[in-house]
Amino acid sequence: MSGNTFGLLYCVTSFGESHGPAYGGVVDGCPPGLELTKEDIQKELDRRKPGSSRHVTQRRESDSVEILSGVYDGRTTGTAIGFLVRNEDQRAKDYSAIAEKFRPGHADYTYWKKYGVRDPRGGGRASARETVVRVAAGAIAKKWLRERYGVEVRGYLAELGSRKIAFRSWDSVNQNAFFCPDAEIVAQLEKFMDDLRESGDSCGARVNVVAANVPAGWGEPVYGRLDADIAWAMMSINAVKGVEIGAGFASIGQKGSEHGDEMTPQGFVSNNNGGVLGGISTGQDVTVSIALKPTSSIRLPRRTINVRGEATSIETTGRHDPCVGIRATPIAEAMLACILMDHALRHRAQCADVKVENSKKIN
Amino acid sequence: MSGNTFGLLYCVTSFGESHGPAYGGVVDGCPPGLELTKEDIQKELDRRKPGSSRHVTQRRESDSVEILSGVYDGRTTGTAIGFLVRNEDQRAKDYSAIAEKFRPGHADYTYWKKYGVRDPRGGGRASARETVVRVAAGAIAKKWLRERYGVEVRGYLAELGSRKIAFRSWDSVNQNAFFCPDAEIVAQLEKFMDDLRESGDSCGARVNVVAANVPAGWGEPVYGRLDADIAWAMMSINAVKGVEIGAGFASIGQKGSEHGDEMTPQGFVSNNNGGVLGGISTGQDVTVSIALKPTSSIRLPRRTINVRGEATSIETTGRHDPCVGIRATPIAEAMLACILMDHALRHRAQCADVKVENSKKIN
Amino acid sequence: MSGNTFGLLYCVTSFGESHGPAYGGVVDGCPPGLELTKEDIQKELDRRKPGSSRHVTQRRESDSVEILSGVYDGRTTGTAIGFLVRNEDQRAKDYSAIAEKFRPGHADYTYWKKYGVRDPRGGGRASARETVVRVAAGAIAKKWLRERYGVEVRGYLAELGSRKIAFRSWDSVNQNAFFCPDAEIVAQLEKFMDDLRESGDSCGARVNVVAANVPAGWGEPVYGRLDADIAWAMMSINAVKGVEIGAGFASIGQKGSEHGDEMTPQGFVSNNNGGVLGGISTGQDVTVSIALKPTSSIRLPRRTINVRGEATSIETTGRHDPCVGIRATPIAEAMLACILMDHALRHRAQCADVKVENSKKIN
Amino acid sequence: MSGNTFGLLYCVTSFGESHGPAYGGVVDGCPPGLELTKEDIQKELDRRKPGSSRHVTQRRESDSVEILSGVYDGRTTGTAIGFLVRNEDQRAKDYSAIAEKFRPGHADYTYWKKYGVRDPRGGGRASARETVVRVAAGAIAKKWLRERYGVEVRGYLAELGSRKIAFRSWDSVNQNAFFCPDAEIVAQLEKFMDDLRESGDSCGARVNVVAANVPAGWGEPVYGRLDADIAWAMMSINAVKGVEIGAGFASIGQKGSEHGDEMTPQGFVSNNNGGVLGGISTGQDVTVSIALKPTSSIRLPRRTINVRGEATSIETTGRHDPCVGIRATPIAEAMLACILMDHALRHRAQCADVKVENSKKIN
Repeated sequence: MSGNTFGLLYCVTSFGESHGPAYGGVVDGCPPGLELTKEDIQKELDRRKPGSSRHVTQRRESDSVEILSGVYDGRTTGTAIGFLVRNEDQRAKDYSAIAEKFRPGHADYTYWKKYGVRDPRGGGRASARETVVRVAAGAIAKKWLRERYGVEVRGYLAELGSRKIAFRSWDSVNQNAFFCPDAEIVAQLEKFMDDLRESGDSCGARVNVVAANVPAGWGEPVYGRLDADIAWAMMSINAVKGVEIGAGFASIGQKGSEHGDEMTPQGFVSNNNGGVLGGISTGQDVTVSIALKPTSSIRLPRRTINVRGEATSIETTGRHDPCVGIRATPIAEAMLACILMDHALRHRAQCADVKVENSKKIN
Repeated sequence: MSGNTFGLLYCVTSFGESHGPAYGGVVDGCPPGLELTKEDIQKELDRRKPGSSRHVTQRRESDSVEILSGVYDGRTTGTAIGFLVRNEDQRAKDYSAIAEKFRPGHADYTYWKKYGVRDPRGGGRASARETVVRVAAGAIAKKWLRERYGVEVRGYLAELGSRKIAFRSWDSVNQNAFFCPDAEIVAQLEKFMDDLRESGDSCGARVNVVAANVPAGWGEPVYGRLDADIAWAMMSINAVKGVEIGAGFASIGQKGSEHGDEMTPQGFVSNNNGGVLGGISTGQDVTVSIALKPTSSIRLPRRTINVRGEATSIETTGRHDPCVGIRATPIAEAMLACILMDHALRHRAQCADVKVENSKKIN
Repeated sequence: MSGNTFGLLYCVTSFGESHGPAYGGVVDGCPPGLELTKEDIQKELDRRKPGSSRHVTQRRESDSVEILSGVYDGRTTGTAIGFLVRNEDQRAKDYSAIAEKFRPGHADYTYWKKYGVRDPRGGGRASARETVVRVAAGAIAKKWLRERYGVEVRGYLAELGSRKIAFRSWDSVNQNAFFCPDAEIVAQLEKFMDDLRESGDSCGARVNVVAANVPAGWGEPVYGRLDADIAWAMMSINAVKGVEIGAGFASIGQKGSEHGDEMTPQGFVSNNNGGVLGGISTGQDVTVSIALKPTSSIRLPRRTINVRGEATSIETTGRHDPCVGIRATPIAEAMLACILMDHALRHRAQCADVKVENSKKIN
Repeated sequence: MSGNTFGLLYCVTSFGESHGPAYGGVVDGCPPGLELTKEDIQKELDRRKPGSSRHVTQRRESDSVEILSGVYDGRTTGTAIGFLVRNEDQRAKDYSAIAEKFRPGHADYTYWKKYGVRDPRGGGRASARETVVRVAAGAIAKKWLRERYGVEVRGYLAELGSRKIAFRSWDSVNQNAFFCPDAEIVAQLEKFMDDLRESGDSCGARVNVVAANVPAGWGEPVYGRLDADIAWAMMSINAVKGVEIGAGFASIGQKGSEHGDEMTPQGFVSNNNGGVLGGISTGQDVTVSIALKPTSSIRLPRRTINVRGEATSIETTGRHDPCVGIRATPIAEAMLACILMDHALRHRAQCADVKVENSKKIN
């Protein structure tokens, strides 16, 4: 694989560029018989859609998905599910001023060093618009996980810039443009973003994702660990610079007597391990936290070089998210769902016949 | 792959258990012609060897490696390199008291839930002894990367428990049992560990790893990102709960005008991105930081359950590292080296013919 | 991978069904900088297009390809090349009479047993229309192989039913509807096909494929053999039941003194091995021969069962190729090209630095 | 993967050379709980062992296997099964006379062209001794397939040189050195081989392999076809030049009305398709036939070149099988078993929940 396919059994292949005609993907390995409509995918795409509030990029895209294969009579057939999302608002002119310059912190420099190709139009393949493919694939995974195992994958914004956000309720999360779990501070976040936008700068964010009702036993030892695959999945999202499972970096300062989650017949007493031990799910919530860097495309002038290696400066005036973290929640959920589904399938491939003979179930 | 092989072109396969006869591995994809002796691997294995100080497990293992294939006349042939490390000190009796109980924070519970098998002997496949395979594979990768591209992969202990350790010099790192880059505080770390060991508890740690001289262009977009693969590799190491690239979680609180690394004809001005942009190396140092949780096997009594789901308590008296982070530096280096080598090969497969026509080189 | 992606470095992913809205694919791993237009792909698609003569299915499809990504300014960018071919003539009514019955020799029975889904419309995913994706991917591979290494991949019809066809010239091959290398017998083949079609029956065929100018050294030992991957590729084509490399089944009756190709400073004296020894290319022509079974959808009545397991009979009156082998030549060429390109990339990944120091080149 | 690992879920990794210290392998993905002893593997290794009759190589190897991991208390644990077979009779002197020459029809030339390395000792990695790893992995697969699904994988010699061998009974197969299914002709085969050996020449062979009781539904469409993977597996065996499934090359001359296997409530009426339709098993016997070329290492003098490209001649006097096909039966069985097991696991991963609602089972 050359970087555009992931998953061993639930495989996702992606193509498309920010200013090309379309994005699309192929989901391979979905079990047959799952009820699936365009709407199942569309509703997740709508959650990450640009232009849904003034705090995100104003690019106008309906992000309307077309299912091209793999579904017959309203159900998955077990064959490859191909889908397409046409680009509708690819204004190439936005990028003319920066056609020969590199944005500090942006991938246009590394793509050019790797491929010898300079496509200035909106980041090309490096654009975060690629995440439509992930979200579509994740929508299918979420649905299957929910229907087959009762797994629920949900996320929320946990920090916006340096501001920490307390978790209040899942109900709030989908009722504001930030996926903020605390309804009372939404107005403050809006003020913060308005100020930020006006300043021409951008900021980072933290997103937490939780998968509930994951059965014990998913994940493989050593190199096939569930948490390692989750770390991969999260770090593969544009702008992510850090990943934690469970207590994450706080584990450093913990003693073993504090970190190791005790067990009782009623279940685990705590969840420092984030639902994964030895790379295998414990039956607790799988908890993941990610750091997203501030957007590299900002209006403030910055020192840079051009394709000839000459010093210059750049300011990016196109339509960009001042905080990519705001729209990252559905993307992180999608990636977690894809990884979980892959491991669900892998687990039942190898261990379908395993019967654990403990009379008392502890999860 | 079912979890015991990783890498697309530089492939590592691993087998072995803590109390079985041996660990071993297969390195597939190494270019032919690399000078390679047993000593090249042994010197890295010796860095992670147990029993090398009183601060780590007292298990007595020479960790002596035997190369079984893939090397002829002192050079790699291009075919699979098989190697073996016999276990010498597998005292199964250590585990008899806990044969039916689960250690809080340990993988013996999840392995049992997954496979229906309870191998109480030293964690079986979940034991950190498996990392001999990684270190051996990493030794070969390190050597090739150094000889072919001048890449240098090095790590150090950056936190021990809640104590932060400042980076002073690479020279110090290999001159103490902690891989501590500050010679002056080693005595304090020893005191800290002596107290910890006496208390019967364990602690976490942070390890930083840096790869210098990585050319720009390694890594693939979207799902084949270098940083995503590094995140996977680090999180696949026993006890790792968090991974950062570059500024990592600090990115959350940064503004874009602060985070985005400016460029001049002399090179990048800073390295918040940790040497990777859009999943592709920039030519700067690749910088990685990981959090290791405290060892789960501790002497202090803890609540747990047994295989019948009944409440009980456990204290683990075998030979364990009170801080697995102490020996983690060579392991993290090895994993980073394997990932870099895989991407070096992938890059030249696809882009061997690319010529980037900038007269002034900026890296 | 769940069956819809192949290739390690030159990766092809496919989706689509005979009576769905479209077929499409993703080619991942193509080096950047290759000049590529829609026409480069279209001209190969046109060679396998239905309806191009009265001897093949009369389904009317323009098989017009749309490139959706991976090409910028007339050149490949190194990122995923997505493409789409819309179905235009999917008359579902053709299949109503057989909706509950299984065609002897057809995959509709096995798909139903595997997935529990019965999609009677034209074979669904099992339809040979899927080969548009292979031909498109092969068109890109052929072009790159030709431009980068001078490799030429060509095929021809070698048997039609039990009639053997002598190889006369490559010039003839593309000048008749059969890819027949002997212009003089085309009229006889037409007569044969007219009679066959009238009889309501179908027939098998043999197609030979040859890759010239393949450098020595492509392919990997043991499980990564070039010939093994070619065998996989050929047998993955609809209706193929046998594959030969070089002397193939004739090797059985040969003595070692006859089969083993002698070498002189001027090169190999013969090519019984078909250009591959030990899984690695020799520098000679890579020669492959495949057997295609007769089409299963025929007008003659046959005994079968229905979805309830009851005895019934079936005759298939839709539009079908009476000999799928007639259109198989471009498909087999495409598959061979994809495998060769994959191994070209794999070889230079591992062996880019190898210098074989023989002053006299023998290939 | 760089050629030394195969399988998606039942993964086999191999290392070792003919004149190195050992061969070994890793089987990854075997379900836990399978009873497995050294003897289960040894008995299959003994079937392919050299020196077991005067008709095969006289190299003296006990081929004694050591299981190093993945088995605890007599059962598989679900983790990687590592195993080792030490070489005992690697007489390097045998090869001194040919150290700089290439054997016509042998891989030593292509290995040298690929890797720039000339290891004259017994073919190095290209030696057919590598098949010990395949046979060991196949032994585990055969056992699991038999116990879990009742699948029986068996093979026999179908042609020796140009002499065709009729199938009489499975009972005969393991009672002679040829895996000949016709006890009455064994003496004739012995005479044939004695004459051949005396002449200093070698001959080819055909081996047929059959898997009985394979459930319908194994295999994946398009690129994951069971028959394509079988073709790959067979062609990856040393000396194989052709593969047929079912009617194979005879399909070319068949009419559709003859080839397509009719179905009745009692089952299929014939098996031209060899138990696979559309890449998915039908529930019938999976039937495979392979052509093995004559051994390239023969005593008769042949024209060749040396590493300097100069004309010379060669005669190979070491210990070689005059017909590698004689020992190929257990190898071909092993490869078929590995592929079937891989697809059994893949199938239940995706389709574990499928219920095909036909009251009358037809297989």
